[in-house]
Amino acid sequence: MQRAAWRDRVREVIFGVETRSGRAFDVLLLWMILLSVTAVLLESVASIQVAWGRELRWLEWVFTALFTVEYCLRLASVERPVRYATSFFGWVDLLAILPTYLSLLFPGAHSLLVIRALRLLRVFRVLKLVRYMGESTTLLQALRASRAKITVFLGAVMTLALILGTLVYLVEGSENGFTSIPRALYWAIVTMTTVGYGDVAPQTVPGQMLATIVMVLGYAIIAVPTGIVSAELTHAHDQPSDRLCASCGAGDHRSDAHFCRRCGGRM
Amino acid sequence: MQRAAWRDRVREVIFGVETRSGRAFDVLLLWMILLSVTAVLLESVASIQVAWGRELRWLEWVFTALFTVEYCLRLASVERPVRYATSFFGWVDLLAILPTYLSLLFPGAHSLLVIRALRLLRVFRVLKLVRYMGESTTLLQALRASRAKITVFLGAVMTLALILGTLVYLVEGSENGFTSIPRALYWAIVTMTTVGYGDVAPQTVPGQMLATIVMVLGYAIIAVPTGIVSAELTHAHDQPSDRLCASCGAGDHRSDAHFCRRCGGRM
Amino acid sequence: MQRAAWRDRVREVIFGVETRSGRAFDVLLLWMILLSVTAVLLESVASIQVAWGRELRWLEWVFTALFTVEYCLRLASVERPVRYATSFFGWVDLLAILPTYLSLLFPGAHSLLVIRALRLLRVFRVLKLVRYMGESTTLLQALRASRAKITVFLGAVMTLALILGTLVYLVEGSENGFTSIPRALYWAIVTMTTVGYGDVAPQTVPGQMLATIVMVLGYAIIAVPTGIVSAELTHAHDQPSDRLCASCGAGDHRSDAHFCRRCGGRM
Amino acid sequence: MQRAAWRDRVREVIFGVETRSGRAFDVLLLWMILLSVTAVLLESVASIQVAWGRELRWLEWVFTALFTVEYCLRLASVERPVRYATSFFGWVDLLAILPTYLSLLFPGAHSLLVIRALRLLRVFRVLKLVRYMGESTTLLQALRASRAKITVFLGAVMTLALILGTLVYLVEGSENGFTSIPRALYWAIVTMTTVGYGDVAPQTVPGQMLATIVMVLGYAIIAVPTGIVSAELTHAHDQPSDRLCASCGAGDHRSDAHFCRRCGGRM
Repeated sequence: MQRAAWRDRVREVIFGVETRSGRAFDVLLLWMILLSVTAVLLESVASIQVAWGRELRWLEWVFTALFTVEYCLRLASVERPVRYATSFFGWVDLLAILPTYLSLLFPGAHSLLVIRALRLLRVFRVLKLVRYMGESTTLLQALRASRAKITVFLGAVMTLALILGTLVYLVEGSENGFTSIPRALYWAIVTMTTVGYGDVAPQTVPGQMLATIVMVLGYAIIAVPTGIVSAELTHAHDQPSDRLCASCGAGDHRSDAHFCRRCGGRM
Repeated sequence: MQRAAWRDRVREVIFGVETRSGRAFDVLLLWMILLSVTAVLLESVASIQVAWGRELRWLEWVFTALFTVEYCLRLASVERPVRYATSFFGWVDLLAILPTYLSLLFPGAHSLLVIRALRLLRVFRVLKLVRYMGESTTLLQALRASRAKITVFLGAVMTLALILGTLVYLVEGSENGFTSIPRALYWAIVTMTTVGYGDVAPQTVPGQMLATIVMVLGYAIIAVPTGIVSAELTHAHDQPSDRLCASCGAGDHRSDAHFCRRCGGRM
Repeated sequence: MQRAAWRDRVREVIFGVETRSGRAFDVLLLWMILLSVTAVLLESVASIQVAWGRELRWLEWVFTALFTVEYCLRLASVERPVRYATSFFGWVDLLAILPTYLSLLFPGAHSLLVIRALRLLRVFRVLKLVRYMGESTTLLQALRASRAKITVFLGAVMTLALILGTLVYLVEGSENGFTSIPRALYWAIVTMTTVGYGDVAPQTVPGQMLATIVMVLGYAIIAVPTGIVSAELTHAHDQPSDRLCASCGAGDHRSDAHFCRRCGGRM
Repeated sequence: MQRAAWRDRVREVIFGVETRSGRAFDVLLLWMILLSVTAVLLESVASIQVAWGRELRWLEWVFTALFTVEYCLRLASVERPVRYATSFFGWVDLLAILPTYLSLLFPGAHSLLVIRALRLLRVFRVLKLVRYMGESTTLLQALRASRAKITVFLGAVMTLALILGTLVYLVEGSENGFTSIPRALYWAIVTMTTVGYGDVAPQTVPGQMLATIVMVLGYAIIAVPTGIVSAELTHAHDQPSDRLCASCGAGDHRSDAHFCRRCGGRM
């Protein structure tokens, strides 16, 4: 019984946000995640690596130890440990600590680069941040509702980019930087999304005319996903409830309405 | 009679999506189209062409044969073959197989480039994808409804790009890369659509001031088509009711209407 | 009287779009405007100027003569010639023919560039196109309604660009291309509007951090004018009429409603 | 009493916009701010500094004197001077005059650069402009309402940019310009916001494929903040009714409501 009480207390602090200590833990964790990610970022800069490499490495082990304790506490206190471990955030929590331990097992010179790669996966630790934001629910619902429309839209954009990229590839040729269709497709996407690096750009007049079409299409097409999400969010705003009036059957009430807006009957 | 039954069965599988085999055929076709397009893309890369040219060419003939059989079955099983052959997807299906055959008829050295061009038309095969997406209907309706507004908008943008491009051409002159009005127009569109390659960019102070106007206009103007599509989709959302008036048959009523907006009959 | 009838007939054809001949005239004029603008564009290309300079110059005089006749007929047939001549399109019609005549009066070697500049003003002829588009009214109304909001928005963006540009100027200095505050302001606008030429770009780490803020701001800020126009157009869609029902006083009717949607009374 | 009347009169002119002289003062101040900011901008251009340095410096002192008098009058006439001085615009008004005076106290050669930096803070003077725009209230309300959603959105974009930037850093390596994770993060934000300078760009095929994902994400993601603000503004549009329930005082009713949504009383 005492053990169960201890588990409940730990779960309340680690997973919950209702209690004072639960919120304090979340804020502390947030700052630790941000600090550890900053440490990984700084370590990748050559000049900082030379000057502060030892301190950063030491800091990394401290953070890894703390996150390991946290991961074990999560596993120990949760109702269904397996379900947590195989959930999205379970994997993220594990991947956030694993690379540092793996760097001990593979001390070879050649594998160093691979280890660095694995360590950088710890950046996924940032994903934890999402957990602390309640507002995201409404957004995600609107995005989920418009998922099918956005998939169709992205498919159409990709098809268009492929066809127009191929046409520009035929018109420009490899002497103007369009060495293959995949490269022309890369250019078409760079142009259509209005990024426009300028590392590949059409040089001939017909190529520039085609590029103009790609640009105007990309510029105008952005209206479509924006319109989809706008309509979805406006809809979510106007109709957050499916409640009908029991007296007159009128729907479309505000979510905070206590009485029917048409007949005045109690809802 | 048996022949008619065979035709019905083939049509059900190839054109229909209601039966299990019809859906399986569509998914299979989708993957084949994606694979064949990937093969065309890879063949255009010089290094891959050298190493895997024979295999890719062989693969291309397999896909062409399969798509030819499919095209013939479509022609044979459809109610009105001529109407299908002259429809949009009829042309797309034909253009998806023709270039490979044409490469046999013109084996000359000089025409090789032309043949390569024709073969690349097979990329249009991708357009078939659109057929498999049901969600596109709502989107297309909203786009069709706002077609006139978007045409006016694009016309106004083009006029503005032409006038501002000409002004920058006069201010900058050919020594700063603005060698002709068409080139200045190209720059204006690159800038207004916020692509911004940077291959042509104003160098003088008055030119940069004009460029600033072009940029801010292009940046603010995107609000217009987005607003058009948003309003159209929000509208489509709010009035999905297909209720028709029993008296006069008028549709398109507000969802909270009690009486027909045209004849006044109770709904 | 016969003269008045002749004037009415000419006005009907030139200004009106109700009659068959009126519409035919408008379409003819549209094509002539497009052709004459294309001629101006082509003449500015050096290679075409050398090969076809005489023909293009001849074509220009033909178009100028035709547009002059049109301008005189407009002046002669309209009710109030002065009001037409001083209206926006009156000035555009005049500016569309003037530069060609001015090129005769100033034949000196030095003034040639000036003449070329004046001739290019004929591009304004394109503005005539706007007249032939009926759809633009709704759009313009929505834009006019949101004019104040968009002015405030652009003012805020400019202020932000000025402050952030100055900060980057202080951080980067003239050795990294930020030679003056106006140049830094130009960079800030290029970045904030997401054009991103890349001719001026921050090189130091603090400069790049500031640039990141400018980019994210510019990227997020576009939501504001888009939202303004969307809301305005959605509003225009939903409430195109201020008509109230005489029986029950209900407003918010569709513009094509003949009967009140609530009480069924005739409107 | 006479003194109080004088203070009231000054406050009416400086802070108020109801009287004729109050509006005239505001317009005058607006022009003076614009002129003084233009002077700071021009002084930073090397060639203008050489030719007109003395005049611009003199002008700067005139503006500083005038703004100092204005600041003192504001302090003297306002009800609570301390509250004004510590408010946002109190600080802006002070920072707009301080740098010029500080340039007197630190006449050393080395501190000249610092002084120049301080002087440029006067650009914040532009922020005063905001005060003169009434329309901004509606906009700010809509932005405040969608603040939480936009914060979540920006957090998600940053996380995504960090993860994708790290992946491109691993794929491309420092030989292709991706020298550190912070630099890769800079590139990811440049790409995701569709700015696209082109100073850092992926060179390898896997890097370009990852870049394509970054671009399409950045291009599609802009739909989210736009949709949020659109929905918020459409909402603000639909419910401008300030009708309060006579019984319970609840506001924010739908425009077609007949009964209070909270207490059910007839409106």
